[in-house]
Amino acid sequence: MNAEIISIGTELLLGEVNDTNASYLASQLALLGANLRWITVVDDNMDRLVEVLGRAWKRSDLVLATGGLGPTQDDLTREAIAQMLNEDMKVSEPLLQNLKAMFAAMDRPMAATNSKQAALISSAQAIPNPRGTAPGWWVERDGRVAVAMPGPPAEMQRMWQREVMPRLQARIQGRVVMLRTLKCFGLSEAEAGETASQFGDWGNPSLGIYAGSDGVHLRMIARAASCDEAAEMIAGSEVRLRNMLATHIWGADDDTLEATVGKLLAERGLTLATMESCTGGLLGSMLTDVPGSSTYYRGGFVAYSDEAKVALGVDLRLIEQHGAVSSQTARAMADAACQGFGADIGLATTGVAGPDSVEDKLPGLAYIGISDRLGQNSVEGRYPPARLEVKRRVAIHALFVLRQRLLVH
Amino acid sequence: MNAEIISIGTELLLGEVNDTNASYLASQLALLGANLRWITVVDDNMDRLVEVLGRAWKRSDLVLATGGLGPTQDDLTREAIAQMLNEDMKVSEPLLQNLKAMFAAMDRPMAATNSKQAALISSAQAIPNPRGTAPGWWVERDGRVAVAMPGPPAEMQRMWQREVMPRLQARIQGRVVMLRTLKCFGLSEAEAGETASQFGDWGNPSLGIYAGSDGVHLRMIARAASCDEAAEMIAGSEVRLRNMLATHIWGADDDTLEATVGKLLAERGLTLATMESCTGGLLGSMLTDVPGSSTYYRGGFVAYSDEAKVALGVDLRLIEQHGAVSSQTARAMADAACQGFGADIGLATTGVAGPDSVEDKLPGLAYIGISDRLGQNSVEGRYPPARLEVKRRVAIHALFVLRQRLLVH
Repeated sequence: MNAEIISIGTELLLGEVNDTNASYLASQLALLGANLRWITVVDDNMDRLVEVLGRAWKRSDLVLATGGLGPTQDDLTREAIAQMLNEDMKVSEPLLQNLKAMFAAMDRPMAATNSKQAALISSAQAIPNPRGTAPGWWVERDGRVAVAMPGPPAEMQRMWQREVMPRLQARIQGRVVMLRTLKCFGLSEAEAGETASQFGDWGNPSLGIYAGSDGVHLRMIARAASCDEAAEMIAGSEVRLRNMLATHIWGADDDTLEATVGKLLAERGLTLATMESCTGGLLGSMLTDVPGSSTYYRGGFVAYSDEAKVALGVDLRLIEQHGAVSSQTARAMADAACQGFGADIGLATTGVAGPDSVEDKLPGLAYIGISDRLGQNSVEGRYPPARLEVKRRVAIHALFVLRQRLLVH
Repeated sequence: MNAEIISIGTELLLGEVNDTNASYLASQLALLGANLRWITVVDDNMDRLVEVLGRAWKRSDLVLATGGLGPTQDDLTREAIAQMLNEDMKVSEPLLQNLKAMFAAMDRPMAATNSKQAALISSAQAIPNPRGTAPGWWVERDGRVAVAMPGPPAEMQRMWQREVMPRLQARIQGRVVMLRTLKCFGLSEAEAGETASQFGDWGNPSLGIYAGSDGVHLRMIARAASCDEAAEMIAGSEVRLRNMLATHIWGADDDTLEATVGKLLAERGLTLATMESCTGGLLGSMLTDVPGSSTYYRGGFVAYSDEAKVALGVDLRLIEQHGAVSSQTARAMADAACQGFGADIGLATTGVAGPDSVEDKLPGLAYIGISDRLGQNSVEGRYPPARLEVKRRVAIHALFVLRQRLLVH
């Protein structure tokens, strides 16, 4: 199956927005076993858009378009597909009612221009988009398929995963590609690579090693004639990797650290509280990204200043003696969080996010404290000294520290 | 000048490498005032490469190609340009001597295949590349220009900055493009579009309307003969937009809401504290993304449960009477944050992040509370009912509410 991607939007050609959709879809098409031949980026111009779509439609079995589905005049993807196929656009009454209900639920007026987001042509079916007002289009004619998806990556990726990819998989037969990603923390890409290479050849399943935002990802891809065969290949490789990297592997595939610790807390009937200095609320935010987190997450303090830390229960003398950025203060903060919220476990972060040094400590140094009935503990971490990166990595590291602790509970 | 970018490399179509060269060159072309019409990504395949290059050469005044200049068999850019222009490739003796000297300096043997990196056609001049073994090609014929640059971003960017851009600037005279983005909150893309369309024609400056993560962005692009003229055009349009959308516009260009409120707080010598329920720490995290936020951000409470809210100073009777998700509770939370941290302003969020309803209130409903010496206030918001989206939008909305409040301080 020859595939082609078209990214639509003047902003992409002005270099203001990096086109992440194309590379996302490119890697997804590789998994489907499709041959991606072209990616084209084109601006919000009717003539050029129709030309690019027309060429793609002629030469490719599958055309994936992103962008241009908004309500404004410069959103032309629907119109261009209609013109390219010489079909008329008509507003679909069910889609229009849907759209009106969506605006009503948000208590916002619907502009008249929004109604074109409810339009279809006879070769097009609407693809649901619960994250936005623009449904996608699944266009099928003469054995070819074109799919139009919204430009915002969160909307596009959900539509791809839930709607488009399953339909495409159903069209492809006799070829199975199976993926399995193991997620690690506490070792580098190179270390993971060296360990994996001890198993010799990684032809099929292949192994890709990537730095993810939550540690190192080991991605196995098996290609086989059947699902069973692929699953067996993956399972064999997974056992080998887990034997070598057991202490580092914390999850797989869609697992997140915050959901993983949430599950462990819920299973053990334990509650958690946080006190954050350098992460400034990010740790609490990640914990509460998980639906149902209110059952185990009691709450948190964001205590940026020394005064706030002391007011919330940290002994001033500890800070004076060891500094706010120290393992002693991290442990005391964790304990104070525990006490303050009456939780079973307290988790704390203190560090130098930068750009300035604190207490003669350089940006990138941080301590994670943990306190529970087993006692108190702390871990020192050093991270690339860029403010947002320090915050992110410290929060992830704290979740990993919590996970390790929960395993012995 | 119509321009076109061609990114060459099979790895780009496998989604393994994100094509950052294209967006870099796109933003550079915008500054040069060139009209970038197409970006095409194509794999290392001779037929497709010649076809894509040929189409670009025909329809564009300037073609910028990156990648495919390496020494191996799958590096085909030179060969494809030669075939497209029907010219013969010949190894240039001075380039070959250069290349040999380069390998000698690195104390590495030169493979025979490297010699093709010293080849030219009669329409091509070599462009120096001190960072790698592949010189670029500057191809000029019939008033058109094609430039082939290496794929590694460091090599490409140096070649662009030092060699290619200066030559292009010399060819372009009397053409300036200026960009200005106004950032709004509290109105939809469609509403912004309807308001802007009341000014009639938006030819030059043109106006693009986009949904950003922090509200709606209005981007003006002026094309003129001089910087002064372009600046004047932008200024005139900006005044018109600001007159109509004054209460919605909170910033421009690289501004962020968290930095904007930080600046206002610092200017007024005011301090801030937060109490977050549905945002779970995200609001504190955004505030502390700004370097120097410790001077005005006293700290925050993450109070997910009713018990935590009460323990931190919210009157239980208020919650019992009106619910945790109510304007009354939001105001009391803001006040409790103020008191708890001894801050001038308290900012609070409470809402239903979902997926489950709370107190018979549907996901997507939230209240933002604010409390300061002027009194207490609250704002109701309804957001698309996806958990992370609710959190993000409530946090952004809270920052906007804070900004509006700070303007009257």
